[in-house]
Amino acid sequence: MEAERVELLSAVEDQYGGVVVNVENHEPMDPKFFSSILEASMYNWRQQGKKGVWLKLPILHSNLVDSAVKAGFRYHHAEADYLMLVRWIPDTPDTFPANASHRVGIGAFVFNSEKEMLVVQERNGVFGGTGVWKMPTGVVNEGEDFCEAAVREVREETGIETKFVEVLAFRQSHKSFFEKSDLFFVCMLQPLSFDIQIQASEIEAAKWMPIEDYAAQPFVQGNENFDFVEKICSSKLDGNYTGFSNVCSCTSSGKKSYLYFSNRDASLLLASKKEQA
Amino acid sequence: MEAERVELLSAVEDQYGGVVVNVENHEPMDPKFFSSILEASMYNWRQQGKKGVWLKLPILHSNLVDSAVKAGFRYHHAEADYLMLVRWIPDTPDTFPANASHRVGIGAFVFNSEKEMLVVQERNGVFGGTGVWKMPTGVVNEGEDFCEAAVREVREETGIETKFVEVLAFRQSHKSFFEKSDLFFVCMLQPLSFDIQIQASEIEAAKWMPIEDYAAQPFVQGNENFDFVEKICSSKLDGNYTGFSNVCSCTSSGKKSYLYFSNRDASLLLASKKEQA
Repeated sequence: MEAERVELLSAVEDQYGGVVVNVENHEPMDPKFFSSILEASMYNWRQQGKKGVWLKLPILHSNLVDSAVKAGFRYHHAEADYLMLVRWIPDTPDTFPANASHRVGIGAFVFNSEKEMLVVQERNGVFGGTGVWKMPTGVVNEGEDFCEAAVREVREETGIETKFVEVLAFRQSHKSFFEKSDLFFVCMLQPLSFDIQIQASEIEAAKWMPIEDYAAQPFVQGNENFDFVEKICSSKLDGNYTGFSNVCSCTSSGKKSYLYFSNRDASLLLASKKEQA
Repeated sequence: MEAERVELLSAVEDQYGGVVVNVENHEPMDPKFFSSILEASMYNWRQQGKKGVWLKLPILHSNLVDSAVKAGFRYHHAEADYLMLVRWIPDTPDTFPANASHRVGIGAFVFNSEKEMLVVQERNGVFGGTGVWKMPTGVVNEGEDFCEAAVREVREETGIETKFVEVLAFRQSHKSFFEKSDLFFVCMLQPLSFDIQIQASEIEAAKWMPIEDYAAQPFVQGNENFDFVEKICSSKLDGNYTGFSNVCSCTSSGKKSYLYFSNRDASLLLASKKEQA
């Protein structure tokens, strides 16, 4: 008698007692066939005492989403080209980590030796056509350090090369985009070049502007947050403010991360840290 | 002759020239029927010059996902109970906002008048069973201010009531969870109560510990980030460090947000701000 062979989904184990299934076939699959191997696989994982099952379905396999939901999976998160579903096997509350909850944005405070501030007029969005001069801003890309995002945005919008100095302040706000929240970091950058070349698609105009003129704009004066951030920037210009500097550390696995802290207070710590490195 | 009537999806306009469709029917829909009204609706929106179409499909309607993808939609984001799809109508690059990219976590530095630090031993996770004493940590909930998340986590894990004082430092790291990034804020909290009652499901033990004993743990000394944060906390205990305080502001629409900044430097600004309020 021949042993019956059942096809199973290929999965890798995660470090929390679960499995991760990445449906990588480049050809569409039949939903009925998928349902049958998903069922057999679930039986197998249950026998093995697995806990959480992660199922990553590329958008090519959108025809399998319904089968997964019918098999007890729920959505976890999605990106443009895939949907991640999860199912918890034991009779205990699931311990799946939460989905990403925040977008991260930056504003760049750049000033030259005449204490002029780099400002732009945006072509689109809420500031489009308003004539408001504002600091360059932007959204941090996936996997990007926000200190590097600030340098990139200033380069893209104005052609000015800069280097990151400090976080002067930051703001957390909610429901900025469906149920998601925002963290916005005001970064001070030191300019390394001064000739402006604007990004015509997004920027109407850019210039170096005396900070008093920036501050005198009715929009800035009338907006509590803009006004307060301007006062912090002015204090910084006058040498009366210290934000958070950063230091980069690498884990043993080579993952890089930046720690932000008050360097004035911790300058000795930083020095000792750099000696160690 | 009777006018032909075509059923269309109900949609609300967004502020960027697009429409948002929320399929709210509580009964499953037939995918073929959905495809036909989606096609008619798309035709209609194209005629109206609409740009971006947002399509929110509750998980009950997982059988319609494939129809939407076949109609040119892509995934934008997902939560446990719904999938958001998007389609850009014009022949221009889409300007859909990016998906949330970061999770936000907190660590709580709480010390009493004997300069002892509140520490816990975790039951699960990477620290479970290691015997390491660490500061209470946790993940910020959807829509939660992280300064309030820190207070909540300390209360849940140890029963100690606290109030937020300052952000001492923070770290941005990447690929902590699939392609998503993390922002982790070390918050100093002032204790308002001192009797510990642990959350038995997650916490093995909790106590007030001299910071020297915390710092002397091999795990802390061997981990660059833990060691550096401990030095910052020790500086704070000695009165030699100032982090970022916060101030809450409300927009005219009633949305609350916290701005974090160096209050020592900006104390005058804060005073003037509070007078205005």
